[in-house]
Amino acid sequence: MDFNIIRAGRAVLHVTNLEKSRPFYEALGFVVTEADSENIFFRGLEEHNHHSLWLKQTTEPAVEAISYKVTCENDLEELEKLFHSQGRQVKWLPKGEQHAIGRALRVQDVTGIPLEFYAEMESVERLLQRYDLHKGAKVQRIDHFNCMVRDVESAYYYYVQKLGFACSEYTEGEQEKIWAAWLHRKPSVHDVAFMNGLGPRLHHIGFWLKDPMSLIDGCDVLAAAGYSANIERGPGRHGLSNAFFLYVRDPDGHRIELYNGDYLTSDPDFKPIKWDLDDPMRQTFWGHQAPDCWFDEASEVLDILTGQKLPLQEPKLKKSKPQFVM
Amino acid sequence: MDFNIIRAGRAVLHVTNLEKSRPFYEALGFVVTEADSENIFFRGLEEHNHHSLWLKQTTEPAVEAISYKVTCENDLEELEKLFHSQGRQVKWLPKGEQHAIGRALRVQDVTGIPLEFYAEMESVERLLQRYDLHKGAKVQRIDHFNCMVRDVESAYYYYVQKLGFACSEYTEGEQEKIWAAWLHRKPSVHDVAFMNGLGPRLHHIGFWLKDPMSLIDGCDVLAAAGYSANIERGPGRHGLSNAFFLYVRDPDGHRIELYNGDYLTSDPDFKPIKWDLDDPMRQTFWGHQAPDCWFDEASEVLDILTGQKLPLQEPKLKKSKPQFVM
Amino acid sequence: MDFNIIRAGRAVLHVTNLEKSRPFYEALGFVVTEADSENIFFRGLEEHNHHSLWLKQTTEPAVEAISYKVTCENDLEELEKLFHSQGRQVKWLPKGEQHAIGRALRVQDVTGIPLEFYAEMESVERLLQRYDLHKGAKVQRIDHFNCMVRDVESAYYYYVQKLGFACSEYTEGEQEKIWAAWLHRKPSVHDVAFMNGLGPRLHHIGFWLKDPMSLIDGCDVLAAAGYSANIERGPGRHGLSNAFFLYVRDPDGHRIELYNGDYLTSDPDFKPIKWDLDDPMRQTFWGHQAPDCWFDEASEVLDILTGQKLPLQEPKLKKSKPQFVM
Amino acid sequence: MDFNIIRAGRAVLHVTNLEKSRPFYEALGFVVTEADSENIFFRGLEEHNHHSLWLKQTTEPAVEAISYKVTCENDLEELEKLFHSQGRQVKWLPKGEQHAIGRALRVQDVTGIPLEFYAEMESVERLLQRYDLHKGAKVQRIDHFNCMVRDVESAYYYYVQKLGFACSEYTEGEQEKIWAAWLHRKPSVHDVAFMNGLGPRLHHIGFWLKDPMSLIDGCDVLAAAGYSANIERGPGRHGLSNAFFLYVRDPDGHRIELYNGDYLTSDPDFKPIKWDLDDPMRQTFWGHQAPDCWFDEASEVLDILTGQKLPLQEPKLKKSKPQFVM
Repeated sequence: MDFNIIRAGRAVLHVTNLEKSRPFYEALGFVVTEADSENIFFRGLEEHNHHSLWLKQTTEPAVEAISYKVTCENDLEELEKLFHSQGRQVKWLPKGEQHAIGRALRVQDVTGIPLEFYAEMESVERLLQRYDLHKGAKVQRIDHFNCMVRDVESAYYYYVQKLGFACSEYTEGEQEKIWAAWLHRKPSVHDVAFMNGLGPRLHHIGFWLKDPMSLIDGCDVLAAAGYSANIERGPGRHGLSNAFFLYVRDPDGHRIELYNGDYLTSDPDFKPIKWDLDDPMRQTFWGHQAPDCWFDEASEVLDILTGQKLPLQEPKLKKSKPQFVM
Repeated sequence: MDFNIIRAGRAVLHVTNLEKSRPFYEALGFVVTEADSENIFFRGLEEHNHHSLWLKQTTEPAVEAISYKVTCENDLEELEKLFHSQGRQVKWLPKGEQHAIGRALRVQDVTGIPLEFYAEMESVERLLQRYDLHKGAKVQRIDHFNCMVRDVESAYYYYVQKLGFACSEYTEGEQEKIWAAWLHRKPSVHDVAFMNGLGPRLHHIGFWLKDPMSLIDGCDVLAAAGYSANIERGPGRHGLSNAFFLYVRDPDGHRIELYNGDYLTSDPDFKPIKWDLDDPMRQTFWGHQAPDCWFDEASEVLDILTGQKLPLQEPKLKKSKPQFVM
Repeated sequence: MDFNIIRAGRAVLHVTNLEKSRPFYEALGFVVTEADSENIFFRGLEEHNHHSLWLKQTTEPAVEAISYKVTCENDLEELEKLFHSQGRQVKWLPKGEQHAIGRALRVQDVTGIPLEFYAEMESVERLLQRYDLHKGAKVQRIDHFNCMVRDVESAYYYYVQKLGFACSEYTEGEQEKIWAAWLHRKPSVHDVAFMNGLGPRLHHIGFWLKDPMSLIDGCDVLAAAGYSANIERGPGRHGLSNAFFLYVRDPDGHRIELYNGDYLTSDPDFKPIKWDLDDPMRQTFWGHQAPDCWFDEASEVLDILTGQKLPLQEPKLKKSKPQFVM
Repeated sequence: MDFNIIRAGRAVLHVTNLEKSRPFYEALGFVVTEADSENIFFRGLEEHNHHSLWLKQTTEPAVEAISYKVTCENDLEELEKLFHSQGRQVKWLPKGEQHAIGRALRVQDVTGIPLEFYAEMESVERLLQRYDLHKGAKVQRIDHFNCMVRDVESAYYYYVQKLGFACSEYTEGEQEKIWAAWLHRKPSVHDVAFMNGLGPRLHHIGFWLKDPMSLIDGCDVLAAAGYSANIERGPGRHGLSNAFFLYVRDPDGHRIELYNGDYLTSDPDFKPIKWDLDDPMRQTFWGHQAPDCWFDEASEVLDILTGQKLPLQEPKLKKSKPQFVM
């Protein structure tokens, strides 16, 4: 490949009421880099780039794009060539059109997820050692996206063969088909995961915490701030990925994962770990069942060209969630 | 009062298969002080007394007694006087009849729970600083008993007025009746709690952990050792008591709570904290609902004289669990 | 004894600049209950009483009193009788003379330390579950005083025989004399400790943290807030007491210990643990040596009647610090 | 560059008594993959390769090599070309000559440090989720090497310009010269650091822990196992790198760092962070001074061809340690 995708970079979410969103994300421990009446730009404590989460106020919750950072401008050109060669339409957003970011390339991926690629984002002060300002779960940085799509296998092969991702772990469903896959560019468990389900939808955005106690503190602070009803699942340990996790829902229902505990995946001889969908320790190592809403609900995504919501399609594999038998 | 109950001291549980029980409790982090084919005596890492949990192999799971330590032999005599004055039958177990413990006095409390009082137990090496031997959740010491009984108010008044317990927190059910109460002798949140329900039954025994990470470690070790199905509820934070908790079920279904996070209750001017039964943050500060089995299942108790199981009685208050609305 | 001392209650410290003291203690995680130009009243997060630390602005740093809470007014009368029978002068401060506290009895103890006893203090909102307000090391409550005195043995016998304290651990110096002793009323390792040294001086006030990570967080926040030079010793584990500790010096040099990790000392059959002064694991279980200033520097105390500093006396035992040989 | 160095891979250390080394490293939390009378191969809990630390019993402590993993065999050929072009002698160790590893290329780097490169190492079971086997500080994986050398600037330029490393942080000494530099291939703070000092010597090998509590647990377990005298420095937080650290010395004096808390360095627009040598928060964010031995002592290294110790050279910059003024 003649381009280098570095990592999951940011998400652009539509929300309906920034005045409700802001205190929620601040309770979680995000830092506001900038905000006006129609936008908030959030970042984590170790992030030296302007933001990793951009909330835009609109009339309906939706996902405008999930974005990957690439090494240089030329990577964007190479990516455009690739997408053109596949007959995909792309959209360029020239530098200046979006705040704090350079030129961006958008495209709908093979499953319909709206992707964005960029090489440049403004630098800001990193607050890693401003411990006196840390709050809530002390969110450190964006880690990954999780997408619910109708055809995980096609996503898997597209991301691995065309975009250069590697697989760390995956889940096998019926007939030895891939039910879910965890794919990475940076040497962590994932930058993006795909799960079989009604899609294309964004299931959640994962943010990295520095340690497990930050997650416990995060639960306590959320609850004390009146957000206990926003805690959807966890704390728990995923068997798959080994993550110590918490899932929360923002005021518009967008799902955020607080995440700690994965491992280094730098080596070409690391063999992807296979899990059976119905292994109860896969979803929660400690044996807890996820609530149905965790499997059923996710954020709808927009067409990069029309800005309209993409129609949803039934998943290719029948099982929409594990059969939980312990 | 002419006696001084110091604290919750030990529990005597009947189990059906010590070979199954032992590895479970060892995975939790208990230390075996002594064991033979019919008995195991467990203690926590900071305990200087012989045991705080005695498992006896029999044909049926049951609770033989929950035991309180008193200051001296004379306290036992005074307790006998009290019980006689109330027309209760007591049973003396002379020193030598039970292993590693002095003379013991047994009685059925006002709710039917089989109590035991003792002043003397053999001393053993405290392993608090033998960190090289610590395992699992690193159980430190016994903390409290939780009993499910038909009439919490009568238990409340009996323990407070006759036995000298103080109340730290309580839950109000319908018609301003006490639905549950947390009572202490040592200045922690409780040595014993009573909950409204089908009883008399022992709901759980709580053991103190030194910090929240020991509880997370405990979950991981239990799961890795094959006990994920024994994890019933948690980790979570109780609103009531502020405890960071985990509930596990032993191979016979006896429920053990791993517990960290309460507070000092030494002061006479500390006002008991009242919670509404249906306040969702009461049971779990983070808003999670407990599974039904947590409310429905508990360990049956034995008659101190006959050794037979006590018949169960429907609770006085109608609600057997909170209405969970968030 | 006809009185009941419950626990270490508060300290009254003289400081020279409240504007410097306030941000320091707030960075540590204390809560300001009330403040004016000459006083700040601080409390910990779980404290339901008005304050546990009272800073008074004066011209010179000093310790006006360390205070114990007793059960009731009558305990104060009984303590006065005791002190009179020993020929000690006492001082009554009637209710109203000190802010937020009832009648108080002051006396110089056998070593010269200015003591205060009180039964009543105003109640305030407990912030234990207001996790959204917790900061720094999240100080929970006052735990103990540590006093440097010329004659530890006389203090030991006085507190144990006359005031009803029990000993949890002690250090033996030359000729089997007690070099230091840890004494408690509440069933923790201590409410007060005495160390051999130039005295009478207050070595430090210990405050309880809820877990070890709060102490690590406390270090990070202090350093980020510009107080790294105030961190004197730690984090480390004391062999004696098993405490996970940090010692910091306030802007006037008063020493505060952040403290987590002791154990329950409720039982009359708990045998005090003896340590040799030169056992390197006594002072720091992990083998670190304390800096000389930790042994040499402490806060001078005032005469309860004259308000003047008490003259210092050389310690009875020669060794002023352990010989550190590893 | 036509090769890709992935990460720090393993160290080959000479020790004088394996029977003393083994229990020390096991107390730290390493796993023994294989051992015989002359060798022990250790790995961390998440490592899927055979070992990251190889101890060889000889008559004198020394460092035989520090090793980097590359992507493929061809990378080794390309590295050989590079070294030949620079007039350096290399040594090939064909597959089979060293246990559990493929063909290896050795060379002395520009500072004299003995390097090794390899593409292949046997796979073994990863124990990441065998929490029931985790011990001590629960060492997860090798993270980095720290080398003390006479000319840090020449190392810096060589590693960055010839070997493709990037700089995350550095320390400036007199005359704006680089006194120390942290360089990485994997996107963490470092795979290797160079410090100005008597060299070439290996200062320490850093191993990654999963969280700060594992480091505290590690201290407790080491002390309880009799290794308190082996704890040299810490726990503390480095200002530079943000690491929560502990330094221990093995029975032969080799220094091991337990390490948690760095950050992602994947981005080309991340600007290296500059620290002044005498900034007290550089070495320890919390203001503690490192002991002199930490600056003075390090492990000598061997000539890859002769197997003899390399002669030591005085550092180019005069200051061998920071001036500590707080």
